[in-house]
Amino acid sequence: MTDKKVAVFRKESFNAAHRLNNSMWDTATNQKVFGKCNLPNYHGHNYDLIVKVIGMPDPKTGFVMDMKVLSDLIKEQVIERFDHKNLNLDTKEFKGLNPTAENIAMVIYDLLRSKIDEKLQMQVRLYETPRNFVEYPAVV
Amino acid sequence: MTDKKVAVFRKESFNAAHRLNNSMWDTATNQKVFGKCNLPNYHGHNYDLIVKVIGMPDPKTGFVMDMKVLSDLIKEQVIERFDHKNLNLDTKEFKGLNPTAENIAMVIYDLLRSKIDEKLQMQVRLYETPRNFVEYPAVV
Amino acid sequence: MTDKKVAVFRKESFNAAHRLNNSMWDTATNQKVFGKCNLPNYHGHNYDLIVKVIGMPDPKTGFVMDMKVLSDLIKEQVIERFDHKNLNLDTKEFKGLNPTAENIAMVIYDLLRSKIDEKLQMQVRLYETPRNFVEYPAVV
Amino acid sequence: MTDKKVAVFRKESFNAAHRLNNSMWDTATNQKVFGKCNLPNYHGHNYDLIVKVIGMPDPKTGFVMDMKVLSDLIKEQVIERFDHKNLNLDTKEFKGLNPTAENIAMVIYDLLRSKIDEKLQMQVRLYETPRNFVEYPAVV
Amino acid sequence: MTDKKVAVFRKESFNAAHRLNNSMWDTATNQKVFGKCNLPNYHGHNYDLIVKVIGMPDPKTGFVMDMKVLSDLIKEQVIERFDHKNLNLDTKEFKGLNPTAENIAMVIYDLLRSKIDEKLQMQVRLYETPRNFVEYPAVV
Amino acid sequence: MTDKKVAVFRKESFNAAHRLNNSMWDTATNQKVFGKCNLPNYHGHNYDLIVKVIGMPDPKTGFVMDMKVLSDLIKEQVIERFDHKNLNLDTKEFKGLNPTAENIAMVIYDLLRSKIDEKLQMQVRLYETPRNFVEYPAVV
Repeated sequence: MTDKKVAVFRKESFNAAHRLNNSMWDTATNQKVFGKCNLPNYHGHNYDLIVKVIGMPDPKTGFVMDMKVLSDLIKEQVIERFDHKNLNLDTKEFKGLNPTAENIAMVIYDLLRSKIDEKLQMQVRLYETPRNFVEYPAVV
Repeated sequence: MTDKKVAVFRKESFNAAHRLNNSMWDTATNQKVFGKCNLPNYHGHNYDLIVKVIGMPDPKTGFVMDMKVLSDLIKEQVIERFDHKNLNLDTKEFKGLNPTAENIAMVIYDLLRSKIDEKLQMQVRLYETPRNFVEYPAVV
Repeated sequence: MTDKKVAVFRKESFNAAHRLNNSMWDTATNQKVFGKCNLPNYHGHNYDLIVKVIGMPDPKTGFVMDMKVLSDLIKEQVIERFDHKNLNLDTKEFKGLNPTAENIAMVIYDLLRSKIDEKLQMQVRLYETPRNFVEYPAVV
Repeated sequence: MTDKKVAVFRKESFNAAHRLNNSMWDTATNQKVFGKCNLPNYHGHNYDLIVKVIGMPDPKTGFVMDMKVLSDLIKEQVIERFDHKNLNLDTKEFKGLNPTAENIAMVIYDLLRSKIDEKLQMQVRLYETPRNFVEYPAVV
Repeated sequence: MTDKKVAVFRKESFNAAHRLNNSMWDTATNQKVFGKCNLPNYHGHNYDLIVKVIGMPDPKTGFVMDMKVLSDLIKEQVIERFDHKNLNLDTKEFKGLNPTAENIAMVIYDLLRSKIDEKLQMQVRLYETPRNFVEYPAVV
Repeated sequence: MTDKKVAVFRKESFNAAHRLNNSMWDTATNQKVFGKCNLPNYHGHNYDLIVKVIGMPDPKTGFVMDMKVLSDLIKEQVIERFDHKNLNLDTKEFKGLNPTAENIAMVIYDLLRSKIDEKLQMQVRLYETPRNFVEYPAVV
């Protein structure tokens, strides 16, 4: 029916604690750069995650990708791993990596990318709050 | 004032019933592939449609396209056709085409594309639910 | 800590088809009263349901009611019953009852009321669309 | 112009970490009752707070209460105290009190109640997530 | 089916300009009390209006009130009157009345109250912004 | 960690009055082209602005750009300038320029572009209402 690709999007959510800190820096520098996001005992967010998958719809199903399969994959790879966790303390992904929205989005992309057919392109959008969000990789 | 294009977006909504089914397949295969979306007596959605139109603003009006004209066009071509309908039973567009979000978005694109100045680029985004949505054609 | 009651709210969603029709009336009357909501092949909605439960928080847990328990109850009693169904054809609750938002809300209230501790007060809010919604019982 | 009261509402937001735990119980009981909300290293939320104030509008201003004054009061009493904090570790209010949504709403009510003219009635609504929220005191 | 009342809600929107000013006061007092809302050349809002109507559902229709009738009434009485208008300059309702959200809600209530069956109770909620809104009459 | 760019987004809001008018045209032409948006005494909107900045995250901070810095820049350059103003009468930017959403987005882009590191790409999205919005420059 078409020779152009379609993008499909699935939204999931998780709640996690984090703090921003660069362990190579002293406390004063961390406080100056990260402000209240550096407070020592963590704060947290309701993260909303939107995963975008691009491809040609299968003519038999009309699906680029079965949204139930995509939802289950996000739950298995992302939500189980990060929901109700402390990103800094409870996850190996952020042991040596500052859990900024940018870095969380890149980690999630990598977790999902290897599980999704490489013929399909992928992008993730992550809302830290309704007013702060990121996309990876950026469309330029 | 600028040599770069502007995108304008108009959001409209419609409510419709549908079921997912491939008439070339037997019942068991349809149930396996489409799950509860294959249930025989239909279910339904509040579809949110966002139409994006890209072009240079007219220096006399400051408009890429008059949003009232775009809104009226969407109502005439899409909302009148699909609102409060059963997509499988009541529309010629989905007589032989599975009404997945991907296919509905492509049908809507085709309905609008021929009515909008060809100098303007177009894209549609269709929300089946707040957590499942599609875009056509995908930006790659 | 307090002698005043607290209300807790849990939101769940389901997608269903329906049409409005009074089987005691002829077709012309049904079309006149219910307009496009009476179209014969059904249309559908993403219904958002908010269940409100009022009581004193348990001093040991700080909970009026465990939201996981409330969520599971709503899923078992309401979502399993109505999600991806045709309310007119697939459910015994609406065999002889017009599935207006008012009636759906009353049916849901009755389904949940008997399963929730009678010391707790209850109310349901049901969104048929973001612009049309109902509450039962009304606070007057 | 009227002899009936008007309610005014102001919405503010804060991001915090917490965990649910009853220090009188052993670990197994806490895990059983609070599930993943009991995980030891905390998780977090974007809390949305809506404060409702009820009274007669001042005929000179047309205000029940100046929303700028109400917003500043919420920021001073609630946002400064809880934003980017760990509710369990960083606040005296939840030292011996389980930070459930119910308890947070009651604490916020008490913090604001003493600062707002006693002729005005007050209620708070607190969203822990878009699907879980509470109101205090409940209207019964 | 029930002996309890049901509330039905209809949401509509309008866009208007206004400024807050008490013509009995001098400029300095107005600026002090109303701040930037007093700026002389007006500012504006996308107002969202939710009208609530409470009553017993008609057993023949399942409706408390036909939402199409309610929507048409709001458009005729409120939207036509205020949409794309300057509330201070273009409307007789706010000639001598400060267009605060409180006062706009009361005016809208009065415009609708006389047109709706007196057996039905009514309330209006008006959003000036997503963070500032009012209800009239308040439930106390 | 990556060789691909990340986009970060910050949302801010302002409330303003405007009317659409081309001073080179007579009244009848303006009324015909701009309809109720041309009404002489202005109307207004709650404008939501989303600024997108694209670049490589700094490996020391994990930030493409500090969102606090971006938020402060938007407030200083855009919100202070336009919030609670009449765009036609109170701003030099729209003295000879019709304040359509397209033109407002282009003006905001220019105000911010010169203040943000030229290595970073930029785009703005402006919501005039939840149903009408624009993006500049468009991705084509």
